[in-house]
Amino acid sequence: MKTSNSRITLHMVSSLDGFIAKKDNSISWFETSSNYEDGIALDSPENTLNTIDCYIMGSHTFELAEELSKNYGWPYGDKTTYVLSHRQLKTERTNIKFYSGDLPLFVESELKGRYQNIWLVGGSNLCKEFLQHDLLDEIKLSILPILLGGGLLFFDFIAKELCLNLMELKAYNNGMVELSYSIKKRM
Amino acid sequence: MKTSNSRITLHMVSSLDGFIAKKDNSISWFETSSNYEDGIALDSPENTLNTIDCYIMGSHTFELAEELSKNYGWPYGDKTTYVLSHRQLKTERTNIKFYSGDLPLFVESELKGRYQNIWLVGGSNLCKEFLQHDLLDEIKLSILPILLGGGLLFFDFIAKELCLNLMELKAYNNGMVELSYSIKKRM
Repeated sequence: MKTSNSRITLHMVSSLDGFIAKKDNSISWFETSSNYEDGIALDSPENTLNTIDCYIMGSHTFELAEELSKNYGWPYGDKTTYVLSHRQLKTERTNIKFYSGDLPLFVESELKGRYQNIWLVGGSNLCKEFLQHDLLDEIKLSILPILLGGGLLFFDFIAKELCLNLMELKAYNNGMVELSYSIKKRM
Repeated sequence: MKTSNSRITLHMVSSLDGFIAKKDNSISWFETSSNYEDGIALDSPENTLNTIDCYIMGSHTFELAEELSKNYGWPYGDKTTYVLSHRQLKTERTNIKFYSGDLPLFVESELKGRYQNIWLVGGSNLCKEFLQHDLLDEIKLSILPILLGGGLLFFDFIAKELCLNLMELKAYNNGMVELSYSIKKRM
């Protein structure tokens, strides 16, 4: 489906019990930290941002990012950001593209060959669709040192078994652990 | 509740999507591996076993271990193993103790001062009760490089928020990652 130079990475920050959002959508838990002396310092967000060519997200993630941007700024810079939804949405941001339709066709026609490092940043339902259609290449999961006990589960019973290759493991001095996997492709 | 020399560690092996068992209870997925060159070699099970003073488990975990022991041997050696259940259970193993009743009282009367390194090894419901009663000191989660897509969820909406301290992080050459946390106690 994809050329060798297009790579779609699912990136998510979750609690140890696998939640990516609390019921009330509050985000103070993202600042949960523990002092892990063997950890490395957090990268500057700009350094990471510069390596990414394009973002993909669902409508709820988009709306939450719009809401949060009023206080915290828009986290995805001026990179092209596709919002995949059947709903009619509006924005004043010129780098946002809305898309509704067939997901494999979207990857084939819009992304393939055009972008290299593509990040899928949520939400849970859209990630599930990408996984179910075998459209992902990598998973990068950042685990914060907290159990939330409830909320929006990230890997929410995707009903598909996928084998992974551990590629990289990082621990940060705030206690966050980042696990990077590639998805083994079936022959 | 506990003396400083008694430490209860929850230990679990899960998939990246947080499942500890498949619906059919098959266990071949435990052998999932990827070649992670920067990882360390797996420890001999005996080395780990020797550091543990006592095990705690629920009835379903016990029954599954009994069933699997016919082909794979009993994995908990001759260490004292408490099976916590309201059901009437039997065994020929002399190191098994059955207990039903109040969980905090069990920890106080049976474990405190008697054992140091205590491992809680499942199942999901019993672990949830320990977490809800603030009876755990540490969590050691081993993540295998696989998405199962369904089954028995480990941290199954425990309805309690707990902050953790990352203590240790290990990656093995089979792609398994082991995360060790202590649970921050509320003042």
